[in-house]
Amino acid sequence: MSAHEEVLALLLEVIKNNTSSNDSTVPKDPEEIPVGVSNRHAHLSQSDVDKLFGTGYQLTKSKDLSQPGQYACKETLILCGPKGSIEKVRILGPVRRSTQVEVLASDSYKLGVHPEVRLSGDLEGTDGITLVGPRGASMMSKGLIIAKRHIHMHCKEAKAFGVSDGQVVAVEVCGNRGGVYNHVEIRATENSAIEFHVDMEEANAMGINGFSKVKIKK
Amino acid sequence: MSAHEEVLALLLEVIKNNTSSNDSTVPKDPEEIPVGVSNRHAHLSQSDVDKLFGTGYQLTKSKDLSQPGQYACKETLILCGPKGSIEKVRILGPVRRSTQVEVLASDSYKLGVHPEVRLSGDLEGTDGITLVGPRGASMMSKGLIIAKRHIHMHCKEAKAFGVSDGQVVAVEVCGNRGGVYNHVEIRATENSAIEFHVDMEEANAMGINGFSKVKIKK
Repeated sequence: MSAHEEVLALLLEVIKNNTSSNDSTVPKDPEEIPVGVSNRHAHLSQSDVDKLFGTGYQLTKSKDLSQPGQYACKETLILCGPKGSIEKVRILGPVRRSTQVEVLASDSYKLGVHPEVRLSGDLEGTDGITLVGPRGASMMSKGLIIAKRHIHMHCKEAKAFGVSDGQVVAVEVCGNRGGVYNHVEIRATENSAIEFHVDMEEANAMGINGFSKVKIKK
Repeated sequence: MSAHEEVLALLLEVIKNNTSSNDSTVPKDPEEIPVGVSNRHAHLSQSDVDKLFGTGYQLTKSKDLSQPGQYACKETLILCGPKGSIEKVRILGPVRRSTQVEVLASDSYKLGVHPEVRLSGDLEGTDGITLVGPRGASMMSKGLIIAKRHIHMHCKEAKAFGVSDGQVVAVEVCGNRGGVYNHVEIRATENSAIEFHVDMEEANAMGINGFSKVKIKK
């Protein structure tokens, strides 16, 4: 995202939060699930932060994300594949045990890589890619994926929806580009905020964005 | 697309054509429909060709497309919106009565424009955008759209599928990113080759490409 887009995204987030907390006159449909749309991004290990930004470097929080404890950082990196590179890839914090880079399917053509569609954290046997920062580079041996769409929710919400962690459901989208996403995995924990996660291409294909609501298909 | 991608696309097209014509041992499923994936592109009027490339300029065919008489040209143009520009936008021939530019939803963020999802040719009330070529520019008053997904087919095929021109159907996609595209319009004429047309984001979202087959949902 450009600086303009980021400012806009921040403003929209504020408006969205204010609207949802103040709009108590409209009864909420308990089956509606808010949508979170991801662009390409990277989660880094401290070891990779050290390589890219200098030993002991601490990432700088730019804004909180919907999942508790997760945030976008001010820092970005460059992804370099055998066929091309992509600049200004946002880093998300906090640091993780393993570095994980999530790209769009169209990015993989530009970079010349062939990432699998995987759930976050399921990195065994995946390919890597080269990360470049202002102070150095790191060649990941694994961790490059296209994110598998999923729904985060609290265990209590899972119970209310009649689903369980790891269950695969279909999600229905209204509108003139609407349809059904199959193979959507439920990710229920005691520390999750409810949100249907798709990447930008998945969102655009169905005409949804961060203001949309979707439903689990019955 | 870069030069590399275009060479690859041409090679894949050749392989695809050879495979489909030689593979006579595998019985075809008559319900399967091949997929055509579009990147952003422009159809120009001769008047706009004149403005962008010089009076009387003739577009140069680079390769035939699946629909009879349609072809990709060697020429590209630059799209310029209020927020940004996109270079190397492929021009498709032959020239049309009205200029029509089809972009991806993600392009619209980059360009700072708000195109509607419309069927090709349905341009009344749409926005325009500025086109720039090597010899000049043209400010379209209308014709900028995000293409509405559709299935081209011959009238005979429509009859065999039990559908008619203008009918709206749903299309089912298998695979680990599969699902259902709703609101897919049938475009049946006496001069159409059967193909389900989606843009790159729609294809990537469902994990399909130019080798995939889809079915009309019953």
